[in-house]
Amino acid sequence: MTLMEFSIIPLDKGISLSEYVARVLTIIDASGLEYRLNPMGTVVEGEWDELLGLLTRCFKELEKDSERINVQVKFDYRKGAAGAIKNKVQSVQEKAGRRFKI
Amino acid sequence: MTLMEFSIIPLDKGISLSEYVARVLTIIDASGLEYRLNPMGTVVEGEWDELLGLLTRCFKELEKDSERINVQVKFDYRKGAAGAIKNKVQSVQEKAGRRFKI
Amino acid sequence: MTLMEFSIIPLDKGISLSEYVARVLTIIDASGLEYRLNPMGTVVEGEWDELLGLLTRCFKELEKDSERINVQVKFDYRKGAAGAIKNKVQSVQEKAGRRFKI
Amino acid sequence: MTLMEFSIIPLDKGISLSEYVARVLTIIDASGLEYRLNPMGTVVEGEWDELLGLLTRCFKELEKDSERINVQVKFDYRKGAAGAIKNKVQSVQEKAGRRFKI
Repeated sequence: MTLMEFSIIPLDKGISLSEYVARVLTIIDASGLEYRLNPMGTVVEGEWDELLGLLTRCFKELEKDSERINVQVKFDYRKGAAGAIKNKVQSVQEKAGRRFKI
Repeated sequence: MTLMEFSIIPLDKGISLSEYVARVLTIIDASGLEYRLNPMGTVVEGEWDELLGLLTRCFKELEKDSERINVQVKFDYRKGAAGAIKNKVQSVQEKAGRRFKI
Repeated sequence: MTLMEFSIIPLDKGISLSEYVARVLTIIDASGLEYRLNPMGTVVEGEWDELLGLLTRCFKELEKDSERINVQVKFDYRKGAAGAIKNKVQSVQEKAGRRFKI
Repeated sequence: MTLMEFSIIPLDKGISLSEYVARVLTIIDASGLEYRLNPMGTVVEGEWDELLGLLTRCFKELEKDSERINVQVKFDYRKGAAGAIKNKVQSVQEKAGRRFKI
């Protein structure tokens, strides 16, 4: 199972980008994959091919009306690790013996 | 005001890294800066120099007992935008007219 | 046309990773796409689907014998911009009116 | 010794960014640190504090006339490894027993 965090920024739309993030999030939410939105990107959990398929749909949505787009992606693959989207944060809190802001 | 998202990965500690993330989060939490932990990194809000100071303290903590460390950082600077750690997610939800998983 | 820069790091192989980078580069070179290796990753130029296909082949090569893999990718899409792998560096030097180290 | 790769993108300047990259590169070149420009960013070698000092000077140069700036940075710290900017690429080629495009 793989976690993918990504953000997609059109460079020809000025500095207010929440409309474009909203279009991307609507696609992510419709995918049925487990995800979490944070202030700098979105983390999605799935199999590699599912994640690249989702990334492609999000990119193609913004490509429709953008001349230049910057995409930043990180993947964390761990063999056999389902549920990582919840377990990673939990595991950090257990190791620290306390809760952090999530 | 600037948002910084970062993750620090020691490469000589095998695949279970939550102990190292916990050490970093303890430093972030003690900084007094607003932050959110997510499954792929931590987002912190502050002034540029505060953020680099925090990044340095986190790096130096792991440098004590690691031979090789990978650090990934993204900054989103927006002139005069305080409260971005909450407002960015809210703004995306308003633009979409719905709530997403956070 | 899109530029993709990426690096793939197995986390269960210790701190000497050039053997794994070499396996990835052999796949990149065989793709026939234009690319440049740098000390922190590899930049490849192609169409979106070609690039994701290549990324997948590289990931699956290391997935064969790694338990945990970190992948970092950036895309720079620019409508209609072929030859960007050479032109971007050239354009920076022209704007500065001088040469930089490449 | 640490390698830092970074790119700085102002979001309020449209899609032609080479002028801004040129301003950043002029600062990097003047630092005296070893560096290489590639089509997606610049790799610099130095001590942690030198690198963060350089990153700050580059950021503050663009902050003068930008409302919103995106910065992407990766660090690769390796204890005692001087000359990594050349040695990493060389080491990959040795492991592969051939040359790649650099």
